[in-house]
Amino acid sequence: MSRTVAVLGGGQLARMMIPPAVELGIDLRVLSAQDGDSAALATTAVGDHRDVQTVLEFAAGADAVTFDHEHVPQEVLHAMLAAGLAVRPGPDALLYAQDKLAMRARLSELGLPVPEWAAIEGPADLDGFLAEHGGAAVVKTPRGGYDGKGVRLVHSTDEVADWFAAGQTLLAEEVVEYRRELAQLVARRPSGDIVAWQVVETVQRDGVCVEVIAPAPDSSGRLGEVAREVAATIARELGVTGVLAVELFETTDERILVNELAMRPHNSGHWTIEGAVTSQFEQHLRAVLDLPLGSTDARQPYAVMVNVLGGPDDPASRYAAALADQPDAKLHFYGKSARPGRKVGHVTAVGDDLDDVVFRARAAAAFFEV
Amino acid sequence: MSRTVAVLGGGQLARMMIPPAVELGIDLRVLSAQDGDSAALATTAVGDHRDVQTVLEFAAGADAVTFDHEHVPQEVLHAMLAAGLAVRPGPDALLYAQDKLAMRARLSELGLPVPEWAAIEGPADLDGFLAEHGGAAVVKTPRGGYDGKGVRLVHSTDEVADWFAAGQTLLAEEVVEYRRELAQLVARRPSGDIVAWQVVETVQRDGVCVEVIAPAPDSSGRLGEVAREVAATIARELGVTGVLAVELFETTDERILVNELAMRPHNSGHWTIEGAVTSQFEQHLRAVLDLPLGSTDARQPYAVMVNVLGGPDDPASRYAAALADQPDAKLHFYGKSARPGRKVGHVTAVGDDLDDVVFRARAAAAFFEV
Repeated sequence: MSRTVAVLGGGQLARMMIPPAVELGIDLRVLSAQDGDSAALATTAVGDHRDVQTVLEFAAGADAVTFDHEHVPQEVLHAMLAAGLAVRPGPDALLYAQDKLAMRARLSELGLPVPEWAAIEGPADLDGFLAEHGGAAVVKTPRGGYDGKGVRLVHSTDEVADWFAAGQTLLAEEVVEYRRELAQLVARRPSGDIVAWQVVETVQRDGVCVEVIAPAPDSSGRLGEVAREVAATIARELGVTGVLAVELFETTDERILVNELAMRPHNSGHWTIEGAVTSQFEQHLRAVLDLPLGSTDARQPYAVMVNVLGGPDDPASRYAAALADQPDAKLHFYGKSARPGRKVGHVTAVGDDLDDVVFRARAAAAFFEV
Repeated sequence: MSRTVAVLGGGQLARMMIPPAVELGIDLRVLSAQDGDSAALATTAVGDHRDVQTVLEFAAGADAVTFDHEHVPQEVLHAMLAAGLAVRPGPDALLYAQDKLAMRARLSELGLPVPEWAAIEGPADLDGFLAEHGGAAVVKTPRGGYDGKGVRLVHSTDEVADWFAAGQTLLAEEVVEYRRELAQLVARRPSGDIVAWQVVETVQRDGVCVEVIAPAPDSSGRLGEVAREVAATIARELGVTGVLAVELFETTDERILVNELAMRPHNSGHWTIEGAVTSQFEQHLRAVLDLPLGSTDARQPYAVMVNVLGGPDDPASRYAAALADQPDAKLHFYGKSARPGRKVGHVTAVGDDLDDVVFRARAAAAFFEV
């Protein structure tokens, strides 16, 4: 009798749970939205994660149910709870990863550092917010956005007229002047233990993460402590189980503000596969099964991860050149077809000299540019 | 278009190729002898690896064909070659992992250090060998043995009467007085490059490997050099492609003698998953696809692997206790049902203090004793 973890969603995050599941002898069961998804190797079902009956049949008998994305409706989450399934994280936590307005309200209530924000019911609200914030705001649709989608920098209500037309409440936030973006990954198991990896710097381009540096340079002191404390508080107060990624701004006036939350393994933690004693994927499986958590210590002074975006149609055709040039770079490809800007893989390098590690990771990734 | 590697045999060695295949985006196709084998997750066919037609259909279109064991008949290997498949290692190399008499003859011809040996056609030959070697010999069936099976320490011909009755030629070897057993792992790609991991000490009990210490204590000097040179010579001269494991005796008079060969990932290399920059499983895939080989450097000063033999029916029921006690131990279970003495999993610990690493690996493994 091994343990079974059922994953809703068959993208690269589910795919990267396969190696630690194989190693630990955990049966991984994946519900993909379509054939040929990244986690197809472990896929035992293809179906709609929004359909209660599909999901209940898929998850029946699993020791824990977890997620590759945050798009499973609350109704489906509650139906699983009612069926006695261990849904991790649970609906009450996941709500705050699904709805940015609910997240902002809850974090404010908890006294956590967030940008100034307001719920926007219509153009008049946004005009008021713009007037109070120097004529600019970041406006977001509360649900469904990712990788820069559903986020706009606006200077007038016209720029989100289409969103108002859809009749939804929007989230407006101040335009934060930040020095850089950080991410703090933690994991929490249902019985309460929380562990934190080192805080990392994430580099974004056009709203998409392109590079992660672990640890974030100059983060060994107070900055790292604050990031860990903020993320641990969120995990505890929101009752998150599994991995929680907290995206942060480090402002030009040296504050830390919470940007976004993800309650699953996250792009900012891919470096942990080679760079930490316990990877985010192994830790997520341990956490959702309520097993003791592993060490989050770094295995090398630095790890750098570079995303491969778009990429060639046949990345494997470039392995020989990339590995000859960078024999120690670790190549990860997700089995996804190439589309401009799509995350199709990543490369990680580790070592004790940051400049060298950055160079090696970028050099290996450059072989996959189109 | 990803690359496809077809593996004949669905045991734990094929299973442990799954994680690096997932990471590199290589399609792994496994031919299992029966449903429910260790590599079932990647299994695309169940069938007989001794049947030419089954194997040709299974392997069609693969970029490379490789092995979980050495039991694929030469006739099948040659049929794959004739069909234009990249069989790695090829039949001419594999012969020496399949037939211990052929191996002894070839290594002797190459001037490599081996125990004194003779081909034994019948009782008279064995009587002669015993008389010349102090009345004792290790007698082996040339084919099909593993984990101590097909090997007997004998003092009279009666003790192998059953093997003589089967009409096969046997291999007799001197009883080597050895201080310890070592194993040297190397990998070779078809274009010729060879890389070597550090030599390890293997501890056997009843003919079965129970523990591996990497590196072998006191092996940094000449001992390690000799081991690497012997293994590289074998890989080159026999034309091995993929991982080659050379089991060695370190004799009481400080010689190194070759004991056995395996041309595939090997139990003595499981420590490389956590302990080396490139694991034997990733390296094997790179080698059989003729990709540049990765660094074999150790990631920590010491790695210790302890096999779980037999084990409980439900190892996962003991994860909580084992991981609470040893949160950094890496547990590997193969999804095999428990039988006394069967290798069902292993545990690896790494670190910079050998005594501590040995303790942690054994402590974690002890939770799975029955």
